[in-house]
This record gives sequence, structure tokens and C-alpha cells, in this order.
Amino acid sequence: MSKLHVIKIGGNLIEDTHQLNKVLSYFAALNEPKILVHGGGKKATEIATKLDVSSKMHQGRRITDQNTLEVATMVYAGLINKNIVAQLQALNVQALGMSGADGNLIQAVKRPVKEIDYGFAGDVVHINRSLINYLITANITIVCCAISHDKNGQLLNTNADTVASEIAIEASKDHEVLLSYCFEKKGVLESPENDDSVIEHINSEVLRNLNENKIISEGMLPKLHHAFNALKRGVDQVHIGSPEMITNPQYVRTILSL
Amino acid sequence: MSKLHVIKIGGNLIEDTHQLNKVLSYFAALNEPKILVHGGGKKATEIATKLDVSSKMHQGRRITDQNTLEVATMVYAGLINKNIVAQLQALNVQALGMSGADGNLIQAVKRPVKEIDYGFAGDVVHINRSLINYLITANITIVCCAISHDKNGQLLNTNADTVASEIAIEASKDHEVLLSYCFEKKGVLESPENDDSVIEHINSEVLRNLNENKIISEGMLPKLHHAFNALKRGVDQVHIGSPEMITNPQYVRTILSL
Repeated sequence: MSKLHVIKIGGNLIEDTHQLNKVLSYFAALNEPKILVHGGGKKATEIATKLDVSSKMHQGRRITDQNTLEVATMVYAGLINKNIVAQLQALNVQALGMSGADGNLIQAVKRPVKEIDYGFAGDVVHINRSLINYLITANITIVCCAISHDKNGQLLNTNADTVASEIAIEASKDHEVLLSYCFEKKGVLESPENDDSVIEHINSEVLRNLNENKIISEGMLPKLHHAFNALKRGVDQVHIGSPEMITNPQYVRTILSL
Repeated sequence: MSKLHVIKIGGNLIEDTHQLNKVLSYFAALNEPKILVHGGGKKATEIATKLDVSSKMHQGRRITDQNTLEVATMVYAGLINKNIVAQLQALNVQALGMSGADGNLIQAVKRPVKEIDYGFAGDVVHINRSLINYLITANITIVCCAISHDKNGQLLNTNADTVASEIAIEASKDHEVLLSYCFEKKGVLESPENDDSVIEHINSEVLRNLNENKIISEGMLPKLHHAFNALKRGVDQVHIGSPEMITNPQYVRTILSL
């Protein structure tokens, strides 16, 4: 099977233009087929504030009302996605920006209302594997934001970490997939405030421990669950760490295994 | 040569959800390969006003400073484009939303500064014909906004009528292209305020007359120039009129010929 990189870049890496350009130059330097998934970050909050749209959060997840969805669509699928694509085009990557609605790439369902109504939040149900393969065949690099749709005309806000893992899992049916979650830290940290507290090896048992003792930061746990879910469902390797690891394996500090 | 429809829908048709849904249902009903190009309209102005970004105009063209470009990218490539794509997906059109940066679909140059500095306004220099053909082959329908790029990382704001005609002209090398400019009137009107003053036939001589006597509205003249440019450069037919003409030729009231 041919190799495919699925690389997710998070909010903090996107906000700083200098930092983003560095990340994109690593990404562009990869010669193998690759897909970039990006989050949103503070820009959406900044625009929402200016537009007087208040963002409600529940357990680290944004509650997406109609106005919040509009802002997310504008900022993620518009501003951030198109700027990343233009930068990659300048680096001679044949980048194509997509939301989940485009080409029905990511179909989702509106999250059912239980105790909390998350609004227009989408849970992924289908990834368009044949489209991914068709675009890869033409040397086209998908740059994907985390806006999905329900195939009935409704856009939905989806977690970018989830989008990356679901794409990686589906693509692993045809490719040897390396999924990388890039963020501003060197790896998974035992204490978020201590950059040198990298946990070097995480397997299912260590994960259980981390979970039970709530050692690592709240935001990292879902990422680890996505990572392990991906490993269990066919993804070859998952890395969590700084963007330098995209081109240089020496920067992979946390090894994940089942 | 196989037939290809290039259909441009303007601002007023996009603003009213009910109207837009009607237009999209006509578009979806076309069984032949098709490309949709859309403008922006008042939504961008509305968002710009809320964000305290003032839009300067010169002779009907927006002067695009950095902030205006950000708003245009958010609204055209994000909000409007993705909502149209989601609606078309619901109508079982395999729609793929694109800006000109995506897949290097529309390369432009920043308009040279002469008497007026139009800011980040782009003049089209290249359309990616092979990408268009590759997507059409897979039954993918391009939905294109009028944000282009310069291939050096800079997004540019481009006139949507120009984008439609340039795509139509380039595609006419491989296809029998019908270019339709859809707007809220029945056809090209002699008096914009009189809906029944449709000019039934416009050829180069009539156009020269209209030009000299400034009979029709200021916004229509550039559209007519695009239309005639397209006819001269290989496009098979150009229609200007109401969206009903997409599926029903009886609604073509103004016939254009060289």
C-alpha cells in the first residue's frame, strides 16, 4: 500500500503567521501524498466577539447556535482555509481546500440532544473514500477544515481532531496512513506547564492510568482517545507533537502503541 | 464536443433564501455537466459594517483593502459558497466549492496601480483547464466564488462576471459552452425600472449603440462586454436573464450574437 500522511494542525499554530508559514513549509516538503486538516482557534472567537455572537462552551466543546455556525463557516472554511491553500500553492503544493460538504467529503449527523443541546454540532458518519483516492491520484492535496454537513443542506461544526482521525481511518483501507497531531508542545506532557515532562511511551494501559488519574490536560485526553481509536481501526502510526516531526522523525517524542 | 453549462448567479438571487433555493433547484435539474459561479452581494457589506470595515467603491468596483479582502474571503469562499454546496449536495449534485486558489483554478495578478489603487483586486491571467476537465470526468460540479490568487500566497478579489466568462472561454476549448448570467430581471432592459423593456436582440452594432448612448444601466454594460468577449473567444452561446432560463429556453428573452 502507498503511504499517506494525514496531518492535523491546531489553533495555536494557525494564529501566528510566522509559525503557520513554518508548519506549511514542513508540510510542503513532504514528497508523499498528504492531507492537511486544520482547526480554527482564536480567530473565530475574535470575529464572533466583533459580530456580537457569544460562544457558549460545555466541557471544552463549543455549543454551536446558528450565528456561531455562520462565524465558524466564514472563518474556518473561508478565511483560514483559503489562506492556507494560497500559501501552499505558493510552495508548489497543488492544494485544494475543502469543507465536509464539498464533494460530500465528510457526512455527519447533528448530535442528538440529551442533557446538553450542542446545537449544530456534527458527529461524523461517512468519509468519501473514493473522492480522496481520486484527488490523490491527480496529485491534489486536500486541505480540510472541520465543517461537515448532513447531506440534507445543513452545515455542521465538527471537532477537527475527530475529522483528522476519521479521514485517517477511512484512508487506511487503501493506504499506509501516518496520522500526526501537531501542536505547540514537544509531545504529550505529564504537566502541561512543564515542556520537559514529555511522556515517552503511551500504550492502552498507560492511557487508562492517565484517564483515571486525570494527570494530563483536559484537552489532550480526547486527542489521545482519537489517536488510539485510529490505531485500533487500521491507521499505521499516530504521532502527537511539534510540527518539526512532519519532516524529521527525531522530533517524535511520544510513541503511541496499542 | 460535450456540452458544458457555466452559470453565474448574482447578488440579489443569493440574498433571499427562498429565491436561492429555487435557482439551485433549476441548476440541479440540469443533467449535463455544469459549473456554478456565484457573486457575493449585500451579505459581505452587512458583515463588513458589523466588523467596522468600510467598503470604498470606484465606478462600481469595490476597492479591496486588507480588511475588505478578509471579509470577502470569509463571506464568498466561506459562508455563501459552503451553504450553496450543502444545498446542492442535498439535491444530489456532487458539488465541490472552490475559490480560485483551490487547485490553482483561477490565477490572477494584482491590478496595477494607475490613477486608482484598487488594492487586492485581481485580474484573471490563467484558468486551470485540466483540473476542470478532471473534475467534470468524475461528475463533480464546481461551485466557484470570485476569490482568486496570485500563486505567490496572496488572495485577490475578482469580479464574478469576469470569472464566469474566463472559465467559459477556457472551457470552450474542450466543450460546447453555454454561459448564462442569471439575475433578477427577465433580460437586458432598455430602462432598468421597466421590467417589460427587454431588448430582444443584441449584436455588436446594438452594443455599440447602447454604449454610446448609455441607454442601459451602468452595471449591465460590463456584463455585456464580458458576454461579447466570451462569444468572440469561443463560447457557443451566452444568455442574460432570469434563472428560469436555466432549464427552460422559453425564458431566454435577450438573444446575443456577434
